Amino acid sequence: MGNLVIVRHGESQWNRENRFTGWADIDLTANGIEQARCAGRALAKAGFRFDLAITSMLKRTIRSQWLILDEMDAMFTPIISHWRLNERHYGALTGHSRAEMIERFGEEQVWAWRRGFDARPPLMDMNDARAPQQEARYKGVPREILPLGESLQDTVERVRVMWDETIAPVLKQGKDVIISSHGNSQRALVKLLEDMPDEEVARFDVPNSVPLVYKLDTDLRVLERRSMTDIPHPGASAIL
Amino acid sequence: MGNLVIVRHGESQWNRENRFTGWADIDLTANGIEQARCAGRALAKAGFRFDLAITSMLKRTIRSQWLILDEMDAMFTPIISHWRLNERHYGALTGHSRAEMIERFGEEQVWAWRRGFDARPPLMDMNDARAPQQEARYKGVPREILPLGESLQDTVERVRVMWDETIAPVLKQGKDVIISSHGNSQRALVKLLEDMPDEEVARFDVPNSVPLVYKLDTDLRVLERRSMTDIPHPGASAIL
Repeated sequence: MGNLVIVRHGESQWNRENRFTGWADIDLTANGIEQARCAGRALAKAGFRFDLAITSMLKRTIRSQWLILDEMDAMFTPIISHWRLNERHYGALTGHSRAEMIERFGEEQVWAWRRGFDARPPLMDMNDARAPQQEARYKGVPREILPLGESLQDTVERVRVMWDETIAPVLKQGKDVIISSHGNSQRALVKLLEDMPDEEVARFDVPNSVPLVYKLDTDLRVLERRSMTDIPHPGASAIL
Repeated sequence: MGNLVIVRHGESQWNRENRFTGWADIDLTANGIEQARCAGRALAKAGFRFDLAITSMLKRTIRSQWLILDEMDAMFTPIISHWRLNERHYGALTGHSRAEMIERFGEEQVWAWRRGFDARPPLMDMNDARAPQQEARYKGVPREILPLGESLQDTVERVRVMWDETIAPVLKQGKDVIISSHGNSQRALVKLLEDMPDEEVARFDVPNSVPLVYKLDTDLRVLERRSMTDIPHPGASAIL
């Protein structure tokens, strides 16, 4: 079977500032750019080639993917950018810092939102200019399935559709696939792949730009998962 | 109907050195990068949005497209990268400078290769490591339809297939499309769109990174073609 590699995007400006990002389209920092390049060089050195690259519709995963493919001298690789791989939608928390939210809602509640499996944050207003329903890029998606705030469980469920409809069929054809993901869409994929228990997946932390490499059998059961943690790497941020 | 914009890639290293490039995967110069960014800023300022971006499989068009979409804050735009939009294959001339080839073959012959419609250069050997048949990126394409040297007419004919199968149907759906092209794949598209006479199209010169904007009717007849020549622009190279 083909290889599946999942790489969380490089550090973003709001990773650095400890702000809830969700669907806000925040770019990489200079550090994040270098992290993504390091991942690309490591994948090239390890001999990977990909038939398909997948990203979310947010520029931090797209830019990371571009940088990786550039370093691999494989810019011609087809890329699919899909909203179902976007970060978990953080609802009304979007843009606020962790410190602010702890002050307003208390440490326990913020911890539940960050590391609970089914805790859903306060929703964003659908008329908020930042709501996906207001954004031109999502105009092809039915309004009612676009989220305004999600638990990790909600994220898993909408990633599952993309997994079933697109990713799994391509892998079953024996293709090599790389996914440039967010912290929580990566968690969702890991849960779907490994059937990881809810509690465990909610605390599963993946550093920016460290490739997770899966070996799968023909039924897409996991034979091996390994992190390329040995690559030179300029430091990473935890998932907010 | 939707808009169709065709933009030749930014200046490449071999544009600068006056070398026949064809399918050699030569990157942009710093100047070429800035040209592509200028095109992106101009398109953004003019209010363009694209439903689909198309490139060749060569990095000078892909990087140009990435830079344009980045400047338009539209990195999420779907991109198709297809070999049929590659530059005209320059066969055995690939990599040689215009001056070298004039010395070897004479001015008249080189002019015929550069500006004739049906003059085909000496072919590249299929066992040459640079032949498309030897390159992993083209492994999905039947060997016998991959070129080893083309006249402009040959290029028009293989671009025509891409036009008929992919580009025209998307335009007929009313989608806005941007194509990041090479000098000769752009000529091919112009010929197909405008039914331009052979002699005229062979001499039709399009500077790097100046967007050609087409208005089409529902049968894809050209209502208007205009060049965005008024954009700030750091200079361009003629088509070799």
